[in-house]
Amino acid sequence: MQVRESFTISEIAQALGAEAVGDVDFSIAAASEPATAGPDDLALALDEQHAQKLGDGRAQAAMVWQGADWQALGLKAAIIVTRPRYAMSGLTALMDRGPQIAPGIHPSAVIDPSAQIGPGAAIGPLVVIGPDARIGARARIASHVSVGAEAELAEDVLLYSGVRIGARVRIGARFIGQPGAVVGSDGFSFVTPEKSSVEQARDSLGTEVERTVQSWMRIHSLGTVEIGDDVELGANSTIDRGTIRATRIGRGCKIDNLVQIGHNVEIGEDCLLCGLVGVAGSVRIGNRVVLAGQCGVSDNIFIGDDVVAGGGTKIYSNAPAGRVLLGSPAVKMETEIEIRKALRRLPRMRKQLAQLQKTVSEQTQKD
Amino acid sequence: MQVRESFTISEIAQALGAEAVGDVDFSIAAASEPATAGPDDLALALDEQHAQKLGDGRAQAAMVWQGADWQALGLKAAIIVTRPRYAMSGLTALMDRGPQIAPGIHPSAVIDPSAQIGPGAAIGPLVVIGPDARIGARARIASHVSVGAEAELAEDVLLYSGVRIGARVRIGARFIGQPGAVVGSDGFSFVTPEKSSVEQARDSLGTEVERTVQSWMRIHSLGTVEIGDDVELGANSTIDRGTIRATRIGRGCKIDNLVQIGHNVEIGEDCLLCGLVGVAGSVRIGNRVVLAGQCGVSDNIFIGDDVVAGGGTKIYSNAPAGRVLLGSPAVKMETEIEIRKALRRLPRMRKQLAQLQKTVSEQTQKD
Amino acid sequence: MQVRESFTISEIAQALGAEAVGDVDFSIAAASEPATAGPDDLALALDEQHAQKLGDGRAQAAMVWQGADWQALGLKAAIIVTRPRYAMSGLTALMDRGPQIAPGIHPSAVIDPSAQIGPGAAIGPLVVIGPDARIGARARIASHVSVGAEAELAEDVLLYSGVRIGARVRIGARFIGQPGAVVGSDGFSFVTPEKSSVEQARDSLGTEVERTVQSWMRIHSLGTVEIGDDVELGANSTIDRGTIRATRIGRGCKIDNLVQIGHNVEIGEDCLLCGLVGVAGSVRIGNRVVLAGQCGVSDNIFIGDDVVAGGGTKIYSNAPAGRVLLGSPAVKMETEIEIRKALRRLPRMRKQLAQLQKTVSEQTQKD
Repeated sequence: MQVRESFTISEIAQALGAEAVGDVDFSIAAASEPATAGPDDLALALDEQHAQKLGDGRAQAAMVWQGADWQALGLKAAIIVTRPRYAMSGLTALMDRGPQIAPGIHPSAVIDPSAQIGPGAAIGPLVVIGPDARIGARARIASHVSVGAEAELAEDVLLYSGVRIGARVRIGARFIGQPGAVVGSDGFSFVTPEKSSVEQARDSLGTEVERTVQSWMRIHSLGTVEIGDDVELGANSTIDRGTIRATRIGRGCKIDNLVQIGHNVEIGEDCLLCGLVGVAGSVRIGNRVVLAGQCGVSDNIFIGDDVVAGGGTKIYSNAPAGRVLLGSPAVKMETEIEIRKALRRLPRMRKQLAQLQKTVSEQTQKD
Repeated sequence: MQVRESFTISEIAQALGAEAVGDVDFSIAAASEPATAGPDDLALALDEQHAQKLGDGRAQAAMVWQGADWQALGLKAAIIVTRPRYAMSGLTALMDRGPQIAPGIHPSAVIDPSAQIGPGAAIGPLVVIGPDARIGARARIASHVSVGAEAELAEDVLLYSGVRIGARVRIGARFIGQPGAVVGSDGFSFVTPEKSSVEQARDSLGTEVERTVQSWMRIHSLGTVEIGDDVELGANSTIDRGTIRATRIGRGCKIDNLVQIGHNVEIGEDCLLCGLVGVAGSVRIGNRVVLAGQCGVSDNIFIGDDVVAGGGTKIYSNAPAGRVLLGSPAVKMETEIEIRKALRRLPRMRKQLAQLQKTVSEQTQKD
Repeated sequence: MQVRESFTISEIAQALGAEAVGDVDFSIAAASEPATAGPDDLALALDEQHAQKLGDGRAQAAMVWQGADWQALGLKAAIIVTRPRYAMSGLTALMDRGPQIAPGIHPSAVIDPSAQIGPGAAIGPLVVIGPDARIGARARIASHVSVGAEAELAEDVLLYSGVRIGARVRIGARFIGQPGAVVGSDGFSFVTPEKSSVEQARDSLGTEVERTVQSWMRIHSLGTVEIGDDVELGANSTIDRGTIRATRIGRGCKIDNLVQIGHNVEIGEDCLLCGLVGVAGSVRIGNRVVLAGQCGVSDNIFIGDDVVAGGGTKIYSNAPAGRVLLGSPAVKMETEIEIRKALRRLPRMRKQLAQLQKTVSEQTQKD
């Protein structure tokens, strides 16, 4: 999408499939919040509450909700949208100037002669691309990125500064890697010669742990990582390679900052993993799963399609499709809410129980 | 502050506003723990317990608490401090040699000709500074740092290796960025054409989720990040840019390692965010708020001034000023402590209740 | 270990100390899962379940469990192992091609003339090594790594892209640093001139917090980090330097991705810290301690030898040796399991208690 300096109201409306009203040739330089909008800005007055702030700014045009009386709001022009949050997607895509990476390969980049760089790629300063790596057409690769040997990136990827793509990793089209994201670190997989305390604790639910002095032997990661199209990976997030097979992230998944995805994990399509989520090794996750911030998933379990887990939920066992989860350990959200209510009343319950014991005891004695 | 090879007892005491006693011209090379101190070290014997270890080392001088009998401790000289932890701040500042970045610009750095570099800046090897970026006076920028186009950094900033400053970000004076810290990654903001399962789960508290197959559309981040003076950002921590307005971090905030700050977040002054804290999008946080390690804050809520949250606290709803929080979900610390006590007794309560039911049932039958 | 293109069944068995059966001269190119194995692959059929998938692939040789009827499985050759997971360690070590870093020092690396580089080291593009740093023999250092002034790395270390080793840090032999790992960031240690709200909240368990406006003063980190032999540090994990003494990680510790280790922490030998674990400042941890994903440890406490903590456990107070922990706050795993059972029944208990109160009240009135 070509990024421009300004847009008319009618151009923006057309791009969003929305209705333009008033002076549709009015020219817009930027999007703003109503209270701080300048005279050339498109104010985002997407509900009554935000519209009330229009008077504090100087906007002459706004994006408004369906049913808004845009003329009464003192506007010269407006764009009327039915699903405001969705319209924001189109509007911000239109106006995003993107990272400014000069076309071509910066002279300071270190590109192995055997690497293949697609047409139209923009590769920034001090990028390192390893032997036999393949970079798709129109890639935008910011400074200090490293791409390992034999890695394959499809067309239109965007890698911000300091992204690390490991050897042999395969990544789909339109991938966005935020600064410092790591794809293809080694899996965290260790074993002791004899049964370890962890294995014992798991087997006995913590009742029996024999202490033996032994060191951890490394299980090396021979596998790789395969990422589908249209995936985004957040800043400083990490995806480990598989042991034998690949760790897999399906098409359309969006992963936030500081997320850890363990070795051998398989994630379906269109999942959303928020900040600081941890997914342990060999977990399988279905499609359209949403894990809110700081969720954790224990190793080797299965999360069904369309599972939604609230912030901080810790999932220790398989979750069936469609389940909405909350809490640690994760239970159905409605159960957790009931438990929490009961918990707040627990100190009172304790007093009531004690009182009741006393009453009954007195009664028994009386009898 | 000029860093030197040695200091006399009286120089140190003067810098701390503390009292020097004994041979105040005694010369000190380094600070040490009492048990491992050499004859030229200043032992940190800040309480009785640490003072007892003086005999294990060879210190002739120590920093001691008010009321300590420094002569009985066998010392030649001492510095007497009233608030020991606070004195540590002055002492360590005095002795910190800091990162050794050679003055000037390293020849391997890639500085855009349009960037402005302030006087006295030290810019290390392989640093990349983008078009129209402005770096303040006396900046110290270690190797492999990238500063995006039009970013503005005030005077006396210190950026350790691999820090990523995104385009258009604005940062105040004396900012310290630990290795790998990211300022200005894109916000994690996605929307589906129709209402998503997350929106449904929120609206119905998890009872109704209709599954529809739809992909996530990106809401691009047109905003930036604005950081006040005297802020420190920990290693590999990440701060996302805002959608339309800026994400804002107020003067004097200190942020630990691996902390995630979402898009549009506004944090007041003098806050302390410890390791692995996650703050979701559009949260507003007041002044002097302290979030201990691994706390989480749900999106779009408000945390009042002076709130203190203990380790691992998950805050799902607004918190009034001055509240001390603990638990998941966060409640008043004293309530949580009461709940935890009751919880430990819960298995016993269950037995008591069952016993009581039996007693009452027998009694009822008897009647 | 020399990495080769192919191995015979008998060579592999010999390396693992395992038994080879059938055509032991059969040549193997790679290890695979049974269902996807090609005719030259060694299928990993380490239990009945995996062995059933052999028919889906084309493997002629497999690694099997003791007692497996390899001939009935249609195999030409097999390697019989007694502890399959342990055998995986040897097998993957044998087959790991490792990162391909060309021997010698890449011309784009910036090595201070005073740094000492051991024989046989391979140093990749755009690496920066500071003054007086010492790099041991046969080090493999990938692109974009930085090693600070006076840092010392023993022999055979492997640093992946973007690892940050701070000044004066000391690291043992065979250390592996995954991409973006940071050793030697500054500790997170701040103090206010007067008692802060945090100190007050701790002292009063949250009941009394006086609000005073004061800014945080930095306690600088004069200490360093010392890491024993055979330690691995995960991608984007961070280890802070100590205030006065060193932060210490013992021999054989394995640390996963996105783990935070605070200043002054001392960790014993052979510990395992999984993804997103946070260890606050001045914690002491014994030997062979295992902290599963997202565990947290409060500052200044002690964790005894052989402690095992399940995922998401938050440890707020000292833990005796051998304890198996779960929950937040951490309790014995068996206690937590009992509490969780009781919690799920809590809403029902509440109803039973209410019913009982009614019964007793009616009875009392009747009497």
